[in-house]
Amino acid sequence: MNGVPAVRLAQPDDWPAIWSIWHAVVRTGDTYVWLPSTSERDARSVWMLPPPAEVWVVDDAVDGLLATALLKPNQAGLGDHVANAGFMVDPERNGRGVGRLLAEAVIARARELGYEAMQYNAVVSTNERAVALWRSLGFDVVGTIPLGFRHATLGPVDLLIMHRPL
Amino acid sequence: MNGVPAVRLAQPDDWPAIWSIWHAVVRTGDTYVWLPSTSERDARSVWMLPPPAEVWVVDDAVDGLLATALLKPNQAGLGDHVANAGFMVDPERNGRGVGRLLAEAVIARARELGYEAMQYNAVVSTNERAVALWRSLGFDVVGTIPLGFRHATLGPVDLLIMHRPL
Repeated sequence: MNGVPAVRLAQPDDWPAIWSIWHAVVRTGDTYVWLPSTSERDARSVWMLPPPAEVWVVDDAVDGLLATALLKPNQAGLGDHVANAGFMVDPERNGRGVGRLLAEAVIARARELGYEAMQYNAVVSTNERAVALWRSLGFDVVGTIPLGFRHATLGPVDLLIMHRPL
Repeated sequence: MNGVPAVRLAQPDDWPAIWSIWHAVVRTGDTYVWLPSTSERDARSVWMLPPPAEVWVVDDAVDGLLATALLKPNQAGLGDHVANAGFMVDPERNGRGVGRLLAEAVIARARELGYEAMQYNAVVSTNERAVALWRSLGFDVVGTIPLGFRHATLGPVDLLIMHRPL
């Protein structure tokens, strides 16, 4: 990574690189509910959503795509002032501030779009890095789903619902 | 209502009667996030979901359909052992135990299908009748989304996340 990579909206031809990240993250079964065996086709159908959803990427001039995010309303109609987002960083290029860079950009974008809050429905409680990142960015745990996640190696663990006003 | 109405799986030709209930419930904008102006087509697309979702109805021999429920996994893959459900009772025939009858049947069905818990993501905090019903059926509030719902007459109010093991 040379310099600050660009955070930009994804284009349809970014999908192969997004899929590479998506699959590498989901296959471990420890941070997302999607099955580790999820096909490329199904992954595309749950991530590359039409408007009002937006897909963002972190694009490095040398290394290519490093991370992706999906921003969308958390609920329909009378709940669509609260955003939901998902974030995936290439596991081989994590820990270099890429997740935080993307999260800050997506939070700013959500505010720009008029969302009044952001909510995550399924933060795996044992994903300490993610929980710490969200807390450092102003999110609080507003709910806990007991044993809501079948962790690939730890068995059933809690899911956290995290929220912050924008 | 004469005798105990039947609780049964919905059939495709139940849709017109389900829509009548659905629209009467959603149009008031005080209990569900779907827009009061939701079209019949959109309503059908969010309620009459394919398997593994199931749609149930309360069918009275004299009065026809009195209520409907949608039962489905609350999350994909590694979270699909927790069920989600939505319930709608014809507002003109509410308060006669129809909601409880249907809720008890759907909870039993969820257990039969192997779900280990049931979770509601968006119980409107001012919907006291619903909150009381769910508490009486063993649900606890496990989370609160501050001002997550734009109530048609009260303005922004909290959404409750309710949960019970099965």
